[in-house]
Amino acid sequence: MELWYTEEHTENVRFSLKIKKHVFQAQSQYQKLDIIDTIEYGRMLLLDGLVMVSDKDETGYHEMIAHIPAFTHPHPQTALVIGGGDGGTVRELLKHPSIQKIDLVEIDRIVTEACVEYMPNISCGLKDTRVSVFFEDGIEWVKNKENYYDIILVDSIDPMGPAVGLFQKPFYRDVFKCLTPEGIIAAQGEPPIYKGFVAGDMVRILKEFFPVATAYQSFIPTYPSGHWLFVIASKKYHPASQFRLEDARKMEKDLHFYNAALHQGAFALPTWVKNLLD
Amino acid sequence: MELWYTEEHTENVRFSLKIKKHVFQAQSQYQKLDIIDTIEYGRMLLLDGLVMVSDKDETGYHEMIAHIPAFTHPHPQTALVIGGGDGGTVRELLKHPSIQKIDLVEIDRIVTEACVEYMPNISCGLKDTRVSVFFEDGIEWVKNKENYYDIILVDSIDPMGPAVGLFQKPFYRDVFKCLTPEGIIAAQGEPPIYKGFVAGDMVRILKEFFPVATAYQSFIPTYPSGHWLFVIASKKYHPASQFRLEDARKMEKDLHFYNAALHQGAFALPTWVKNLLD
Repeated sequence: MELWYTEEHTENVRFSLKIKKHVFQAQSQYQKLDIIDTIEYGRMLLLDGLVMVSDKDETGYHEMIAHIPAFTHPHPQTALVIGGGDGGTVRELLKHPSIQKIDLVEIDRIVTEACVEYMPNISCGLKDTRVSVFFEDGIEWVKNKENYYDIILVDSIDPMGPAVGLFQKPFYRDVFKCLTPEGIIAAQGEPPIYKGFVAGDMVRILKEFFPVATAYQSFIPTYPSGHWLFVIASKKYHPASQFRLEDARKMEKDLHFYNAALHQGAFALPTWVKNLLD
Repeated sequence: MELWYTEEHTENVRFSLKIKKHVFQAQSQYQKLDIIDTIEYGRMLLLDGLVMVSDKDETGYHEMIAHIPAFTHPHPQTALVIGGGDGGTVRELLKHPSIQKIDLVEIDRIVTEACVEYMPNISCGLKDTRVSVFFEDGIEWVKNKENYYDIILVDSIDPMGPAVGLFQKPFYRDVFKCLTPEGIIAAQGEPPIYKGFVAGDMVRILKEFFPVATAYQSFIPTYPSGHWLFVIASKKYHPASQFRLEDARKMEKDLHFYNAALHQGAFALPTWVKNLLD
């Protein structure tokens, strides 16, 4: 018997992976969670049937959402990760020696519990003493906090269900207030090629609050189209040209995906993507 | 009834597209050719059941294989395209005003005939008076030609059947001789993430002949993993740092994918890909 997992990237595009084992399944009040062992991409976390993380290509997501803002901030000490219950983004932030405190605010406890048990390579950082995990709504979390975090990373699912507000203006107004004077926000921005393009709206919203807002890209083969965007906004430093190049070069030899040249290169978007964003 | 086309990216990964119509089918002595209309990616050419070109994402391939070498050469006048029977690579080279002569050497006449009839947006350049089309073996074509072309582009299928030699050392020895003193070769280099990685071997071979040889990447969602490599080698100028930046900036507004920033950014490979190449 062959077992295949299939994700509908759109109603007209399907991506299928042969699996060795369906490892775990759970249903929370928010979503359905599955963990599968695929032959090509290793262990994989699915939420509502959509790929969130795979062992083989997760660094193209986690290293890129974490290190680009972290090397742009001159001395990041405090960070908030919204979503990201698998722990991969936290694991990367912890590699920065200046980081003293990370709050992970994940709405769904089962995500973290399943990843701690079944994806230790991804979730390992959650045990670090600098990390506090809260199972709460990130949209509420940033309300009424001022001048609190140096970095906020929005490591969310697609804009649906409880995540819709993470793509909207009231949330980013609160994020701006919540950040310190050199603060930086980065958020996953969906793929540019399919319907439901959201990064353009996200950058436009961010520009209402931040002097610098733009997008960058990464290669994530298990995500729809493999071409993924992140949006980023900063109160002071431009992430493409004013990041800590030498510090990035020092850390890059210990990383799998991110490097200082790629930090700059990730902002070089194809013309058709730039046009969508303008 | 729903019609779906499925490509096996590996024996454990499948990519499927819903199609509106199976437009054309033919069998040559070399391969099976199909043209299909997909809903998400428009018209698409398949050879032996594998995606070669789609209307929606072809510029990530054709603009990147053509303009990076063409803007690295100081004044390209003559070019050879091996494979590329669809005409997309020729169409991009023709945008360079210095180009006086392009030879397209495609082994399989049915590819060009089908694309002229069914994919006019891709094949349009083949009618240009500067272009000569030869239905011959590119491996034979470069033998015994010296100091002949400024640019050679290898726009081939995967390393199988008649294309195997296009990934091997004797061919690149001939290519080196065939190029003029400032000559440049670029070739499609397959995806880095799956078994059968070839770009490392290609760069190693090219380094035996050329002072400069490296690889760059593009986003091509309909190709396996969406993360595609090209290899490039040059007798004189480094394609990442010594290209004609101002000329590239002038042309970029008329292109869909390539731009001067992306020219540089395309050489910023993820660390794991750099390690595979070293």
